[in-house]
This record gives sequence, structure tokens and C-alpha cells, in this order.
Amino acid sequence: MSTKGFTLWLTGLSGAGKTTLASLLAKELGARGVHVEVLDGDEVRTNLSKGLGFSKEDRDTNIRRIGYVCRLLSRNGISTISAAISPYRAVRDEVGRAIERDGADFIEVFVKCPIEVLAERDVKGLYKKAMAGKIVGFTGVSDPYEEPLSPAIVIQTDRENVDTSVCIITRELEQRDLIPKVGTKSLRARRSGFTQRWSVRRRNSGPAKTLRAGRTITILKKLFFSRYSRSR
Amino acid sequence: MSTKGFTLWLTGLSGAGKTTLASLLAKELGARGVHVEVLDGDEVRTNLSKGLGFSKEDRDTNIRRIGYVCRLLSRNGISTISAAISPYRAVRDEVGRAIERDGADFIEVFVKCPIEVLAERDVKGLYKKAMAGKIVGFTGVSDPYEEPLSPAIVIQTDRENVDTSVCIITRELEQRDLIPKVGTKSLRARRSGFTQRWSVRRRNSGPAKTLRAGRTITILKKLFFSRYSRSR
Repeated sequence: MSTKGFTLWLTGLSGAGKTTLASLLAKELGARGVHVEVLDGDEVRTNLSKGLGFSKEDRDTNIRRIGYVCRLLSRNGISTISAAISPYRAVRDEVGRAIERDGADFIEVFVKCPIEVLAERDVKGLYKKAMAGKIVGFTGVSDPYEEPLSPAIVIQTDRENVDTSVCIITRELEQRDLIPKVGTKSLRARRSGFTQRWSVRRRNSGPAKTLRAGRTITILKKLFFSRYSRSR
Repeated sequence: MSTKGFTLWLTGLSGAGKTTLASLLAKELGARGVHVEVLDGDEVRTNLSKGLGFSKEDRDTNIRRIGYVCRLLSRNGISTISAAISPYRAVRDEVGRAIERDGADFIEVFVKCPIEVLAERDVKGLYKKAMAGKIVGFTGVSDPYEEPLSPAIVIQTDRENVDTSVCIITRELEQRDLIPKVGTKSLRARRSGFTQRWSVRRRNSGPAKTLRAGRTITILKKLFFSRYSRSR
């Protein structure tokens, strides 16, 4: 197995499941003897980016700082998982190139979930507030999210079990020889503790509308599009 | 030898020799197979603290960020050297406690040099500007520097060879079982490339006035004290 580090870069809208996925992955990798540092968006905002706002410039600065820390760690063989929205493609790519230049793997994971599902789940009540205009510059609602053009992995949290999502990512890491392989049986046994669906509510909602990859989306644009298509 | 990481925290006035010392130490430790990450004040200001100023609050924030990165690295066995002025005692101590809580060693190194010597060396011309009032909030001139009360190591860059300074620190790291020991002979041979005095100009100046440890000093206060003592 390789001793070089990697950075697993989770990107996706608020509430898509990045933090949950990061923490379960850290647990799974830990069980295989691979310690990873999780750089969660909220934690990083406290430790590295206090005072930064949510303008494009400030968001990019925040992502560059997370990228810098991931780079320092992964070039020393300590793997990291970033779980920040990271809405802008250019700065994600910039961070990825910097990490790869230092000899570590950068694996972009698009944690994908249609915004209608997220607005319905709305665990923290943020989408409701954002759609009522009470939060300005909310990614996907009133601020852009640029989907990755060629992510290494796409996780569809409205369709998969958490279990499956974790499995898809660990398989990719195994194939890249970045983590030790374990037998499928023991893996399943260990994972039984957190076998759960990404979204319980999702069961009752209609079929997921997937978004065209690579499009910059905001819910305002989507509303416009849906009205436009209905009027045709 | 221990596999736990350590953070070597160099603190001292601008121009005292922190960056030089950090880079030579990194070289020396690298030759012993111990890779360390150097977090230099200027580099960190670019990557982590762009936009921060030099108020007490901003300086403390800057130091907390460096501390956070040192903590992440050293708790994973990757040792770090911080080379930032870090003028305030409380935040240095806070960072030290956080690093030690995570099981890594925190070694505070006071890189000490009398301000008269620094003002005379003035490699970057900053002291001249600061003393002419062209730079406001310059540590040691118009902004406080709080000396460590009980640093693990004191390096006196107006009195020692660089060689000696590096040796004092590596000996401490050896004694703590944090780096592998090497024979004195081979060490001396390898080090011959950078045997130089900290300050050449120092030779022509008078005997160094050492400052009472633990005192908050600024050159303005010092001028006041020297006038006062003369008038008695």
C-alpha cells in the first residue's frame, strides 16, 4: 500500500450530506488503521476563517485556507477529508492542482442531491429562511453552486444508502492503493451499525430530478426554468 | 525514539533570527530523517491570514491559526517549527496547551536579541522606519513584546554562533527523545557549511544589555527608562 496521503474533497450544497459522510468515512478508515483529519466547513470557519463572510472572494479565501491545510497534511502522508460546500469550480481545481503538485492524491467527490429534496429535508431550517429571503447569498438559492465537471466520484444522497456511499468511496481509495483492502464480509459486519438511508423523507417524494452536470444552478434560476418550460 | 510529533515554537522580535534558525533546523532535522514543516510568519500571513492587520486581536488570531495548523500536524506525528513573532504571552500559552492536550510536545524557544542590536543590524530597514514613526504598531518599538516567562530554550542571537543555536535546540530535542541522536563528529562535519555568526556587526558594538525576562518592552519605554536612570 502507498504511504502517500490523499485529500478527499467533498463538495456539494448545504445539507447534501458532506459532514455525515466525512464522519462515517473517518470512522471506516480509522477501523482500517488509516487516521484521517476531517476539515469540516463549520469547524474551519471557527479556526481559520473567523471574520470572513460569504462573498465570492471570502468563500474562495476560505477554500484556499482549507486547501493549504489539506496540502500540508497530505504531503506528509496524513490524509484529509474536506467537507465544505466549496461552490466555485476554479478554486477547487486550484487547490487540487496544488495538492497533486506536492505528490498527494486529490479526489473530488461530488455529494449530489437535488435542491428540491434538500429544501424538503431542510434539517437546519436554512432553506426555508433562504427562500424567504431571510438569508442572503445562500448557496443554491441566491448564490451560485458550480457543479464539478469531472469529479472522481459522484455520490447521490437522494438515491443511495449511506452505507453504499461510504462503500463507493472506500472502493475508489482501495483501487488507488491508498487504503488497505478488507474482506467484504467483515466490512459489512462492521458497517451494520450505521446502515441507514440518506433521507427518510425522500421515500415519499416524487422521482428525483437530476441536474445537468456542470451547470451553475441557483433555485431562482431553476424556478425561472421550470416556469418557462411550463409555459411552452 | 518517540513517534509523536512536536511543535518548536520560536518567538522573538523581528530580525532576531527566527526564520534563519527555522530553516537551518529544518535542514539539520531533515538530515536526520525527520521532516518538519516550517510555518514562517510571512508565509502564513499569505496563506492563512491575508487581510488581518497588526492589532492585538488580529495578531492573536494569526497566532491561533498557526497554532491550529501546528496542532493538526504534530498530533499526527508531523513536527512543525513556527517562526512568527507571536508577541503576546497568553495566546502563545493557549496554543501550547492545545498542542500538549493532543499529545504532542510544545517547545517554546525564545529567540532573544537586544533591541539595540536589532536596530543596528536592521537588515530590512524596518527598525529605522518604525523609529521614525513611519510604521505604526511595530513590535518592540511601538507595540509590545511579552517575553516568555519560562521558555524551554533561550537562544541569544547576539552572543552565539548560528551553529551553537542549532546545536542547543537539537540537543533539547534529543534529550526529549523526539529526534534520533547522531555522533558529534558527523554532526560537526555536516554543519560546517553554515557555520556563521548570527551578527557580524555585533562585534563592533558594546556589551549586550540583556532585558529582564518577563518584562513587556517597547523601545519607547526603554528610552524613557534610560533617560530616567541617567537623570538620577
